[in-house]
Amino acid sequence: MEEGEEKKFKLTAKKADNLTDWYTQVIINSEFVDYSAVSGMLVYRPDAYFAWDTIKEVTDLMFKAAGVQDVYFPLLIPERFLEMEKEHVKGFSPEVAWVTHAGKTELSERLAVRPTSEAIMYDSFAKWVRSWRDLPIKFNIWASVVRWEFKHPTPLLRSREFLWNEGHSAFATSEEAEAERDVILGIYQKVLRDYLALPGVRGRKTDTEKFAGAVATYSIEHLMPDGWNIQGPDHHSDGQNFAKAYGIQFIDKDGKRKYAYQNTYAISTRELGAMVMMHGDDKGLVLPPKLARIQVVVVPIYTNLNKAEILDYAEKVRAALGSDFRVYVDARDEYSPGWKFNEWEIKGVPVRIEAGKRELEAQSVVIVRRDTGAKEPVQLSQLKPEIAKTLEAIHENLYNRANEFMKAHTFKVKDYDELKSKVGKGFAQAPWCGSAECEGKIKDETGAKATNMPDEEQAAAKGKKCIRCGNDAQFIVNFAKSY
Amino acid sequence: MEEGEEKKFKLTAKKADNLTDWYTQVIINSEFVDYSAVSGMLVYRPDAYFAWDTIKEVTDLMFKAAGVQDVYFPLLIPERFLEMEKEHVKGFSPEVAWVTHAGKTELSERLAVRPTSEAIMYDSFAKWVRSWRDLPIKFNIWASVVRWEFKHPTPLLRSREFLWNEGHSAFATSEEAEAERDVILGIYQKVLRDYLALPGVRGRKTDTEKFAGAVATYSIEHLMPDGWNIQGPDHHSDGQNFAKAYGIQFIDKDGKRKYAYQNTYAISTRELGAMVMMHGDDKGLVLPPKLARIQVVVVPIYTNLNKAEILDYAEKVRAALGSDFRVYVDARDEYSPGWKFNEWEIKGVPVRIEAGKRELEAQSVVIVRRDTGAKEPVQLSQLKPEIAKTLEAIHENLYNRANEFMKAHTFKVKDYDELKSKVGKGFAQAPWCGSAECEGKIKDETGAKATNMPDEEQAAAKGKKCIRCGNDAQFIVNFAKSY
Repeated sequence: MEEGEEKKFKLTAKKADNLTDWYTQVIINSEFVDYSAVSGMLVYRPDAYFAWDTIKEVTDLMFKAAGVQDVYFPLLIPERFLEMEKEHVKGFSPEVAWVTHAGKTELSERLAVRPTSEAIMYDSFAKWVRSWRDLPIKFNIWASVVRWEFKHPTPLLRSREFLWNEGHSAFATSEEAEAERDVILGIYQKVLRDYLALPGVRGRKTDTEKFAGAVATYSIEHLMPDGWNIQGPDHHSDGQNFAKAYGIQFIDKDGKRKYAYQNTYAISTRELGAMVMMHGDDKGLVLPPKLARIQVVVVPIYTNLNKAEILDYAEKVRAALGSDFRVYVDARDEYSPGWKFNEWEIKGVPVRIEAGKRELEAQSVVIVRRDTGAKEPVQLSQLKPEIAKTLEAIHENLYNRANEFMKAHTFKVKDYDELKSKVGKGFAQAPWCGSAECEGKIKDETGAKATNMPDEEQAAAKGKKCIRCGNDAQFIVNFAKSY
Repeated sequence: MEEGEEKKFKLTAKKADNLTDWYTQVIINSEFVDYSAVSGMLVYRPDAYFAWDTIKEVTDLMFKAAGVQDVYFPLLIPERFLEMEKEHVKGFSPEVAWVTHAGKTELSERLAVRPTSEAIMYDSFAKWVRSWRDLPIKFNIWASVVRWEFKHPTPLLRSREFLWNEGHSAFATSEEAEAERDVILGIYQKVLRDYLALPGVRGRKTDTEKFAGAVATYSIEHLMPDGWNIQGPDHHSDGQNFAKAYGIQFIDKDGKRKYAYQNTYAISTRELGAMVMMHGDDKGLVLPPKLARIQVVVVPIYTNLNKAEILDYAEKVRAALGSDFRVYVDARDEYSPGWKFNEWEIKGVPVRIEAGKRELEAQSVVIVRRDTGAKEPVQLSQLKPEIAKTLEAIHENLYNRANEFMKAHTFKVKDYDELKSKVGKGFAQAPWCGSAECEGKIKDETGAKATNMPDEEQAAAKGKKCIRCGNDAQFIVNFAKSY
């Protein structure tokens, strides 16, 4: 680009030909995110941060309605705390960023930059919890975490820093802890469905794939357009593992000393990556309307002769839209309408409104849907309800398209050969005996891992045989290649 | 405390006798914040985080209305970036927490845990800005920062990690940059006035006290009940200092290459400390109603005989309040009403509603104001408007009390002896010649530093003599001891 020249928005890769190249181009060139000076760490530019902030806001409202309270815990965690839960430290220490110095002073103990907050939170929980009166604790943090991935980072999907919610609960009984899972996963599903327009498969992870330190992990799994899987939000049943490691004990009503039961759960900025990958097209981002910082862009189309009156008309169009939508009138004189169309398309703005001489005369506009490209003339008097309907239609179309894709690429495979043939093309759904050995062989032989065991399919395991060893099946598993 | 026993909320220190001890007790024992395993880093418990989150929310809305966009930049900053602006690195490097290892691998370059984000953001700004078309940039981050204070940390006021907003702007002209200051400081003043019920003095800092790397710093300064000062939100004019250091250049409309003009600004969780210190009393926190997670607590007063009907009545009281307020009905059977009064008082809940047998019979309640202790019977039919009025009255009372205190403890001192006599008792307001030498002598000889130069007082400098050297005065300065 020449100095002083206006910016150009370009995509050369095609989504269908090379999803990875297309994804990287679209996410960077649309100014959604950018690389930073630190390898693997991203800059969230206004559109990406707005989307995440909205996800935060709506999720948080639902958390609060479920009795969850937001708190904040320190970013840095003493090494000895991380080491208290054996499985936990094994899972995280290889990717911890360590603070060793403050100014010129070497610290007496290394501090981990928060990779997850169990270790620092549960030290406080142990201090606060004495009696059954102090339970339940239902806390949540919105924060960033650092995990030093050594594999090739992918923006949003595999970053060395990401933003997330971290829910941490402690209950007096296992039953209460178990009951929380449906509430939280229900909230995540609603956020995915209603805001990101993303479907997902809910189920338990296998023991091999569960969270480091948990008794069981439940997840929502996405399927991407290339047939690969991305893990979505999750909820971990920790049982009494952490309570025992950190000493979270209470005197119950019966006078007995007991350990608390705990859960943790999270949704992260990785969802933004899944959203972009699923909904985008060869023109760029396609943002679900509720997460779009700009929902409607008005592009006035004028000549030197009618500029003033067309710009006035564009303002009239804005006024007709009222305050129900996030509207930007693109009156910049330094860019042509065509250039603007291109920019707002790559940025994924859901609806473009074109307003020129012909429209002014007819007191109408042309509205253009980003998802389908469909153009439609609308009278100014009908604009407000029409835009509301169109944004809703775009959201539903994005969700339905993604959901149909997922259904069409979920294969109930009959034998091991069919499983192999479906790996890399979607979810290969198969009965499994429950042994880590078979799971490992399937991974080694096909490259597919067990994404999760869909809740809705488990009843079908009965009477089936394991796809790998032929013994009685315990579970139905969705196998897939995974980002 | 015996194991299994219920928690006790106690304050032994008196605010008037020992502000520091009282402050620490109230902030910890009220469960507002807690110490963590990392010295100098705090846990923000639900009430503190709610207050901060509300400050964030209302500030952010006003930022957005002023055209500021939220973004996010990496937590970790390469050492060479910090070093690019000479004054900046001198100011910050003594208190930077350094990441040196990831997992078992030593990093090839140390990474600073964000003490402030200029160094990482301006690298991106330099990349993004090419033309006048790319300006202005008005970005903001909500994040946590780490500054390793080696002095004795004080919860919220001097912590090694705090939460803040970080506004970063870049403009094509100095005029635009200057014009931003009033907008942003106006927003901060509104947030302080309308939400924290805190007054403050707005003015420019002296060059000695300005931000490391800035041309000028403007601040809002608070006065605490012991006559000491706490610095509030600030706005820094960076001129072209950082633009030159980081290469933020653009081709202007006239075809010439120019450096951008920049500002930064911040409000932090330190304000929560100022709020607690200013409004609290010997019974504990006194929360401004708009920042109180629970605004109204309903305490049913029952015996074993009338428990069911009184609890029903408490629910009727809740229903009468509708959804306009944040209400908690404290129906816990395991605590006595007296114990509950004590707990909600130390936690600073603005209004307590007592509902017992007598109230049930009269279809009334007793409402008790946390700020004054005033009790008043109110008919249920009048409760909703009465509570709205009372919350408003509490807010105004807190603000007026603090504002009157500040006025009464701002002393226009006539000579150096009077200045000395007022140091430690409030703002000693005096003319100053503008020399760092006099400023330094005043600090050494009285222990008072120049807090800022109040905007409203500057006209009065004309014709006055410097309080220290007797030369012509340039400015009117508020001198005070400072937290």
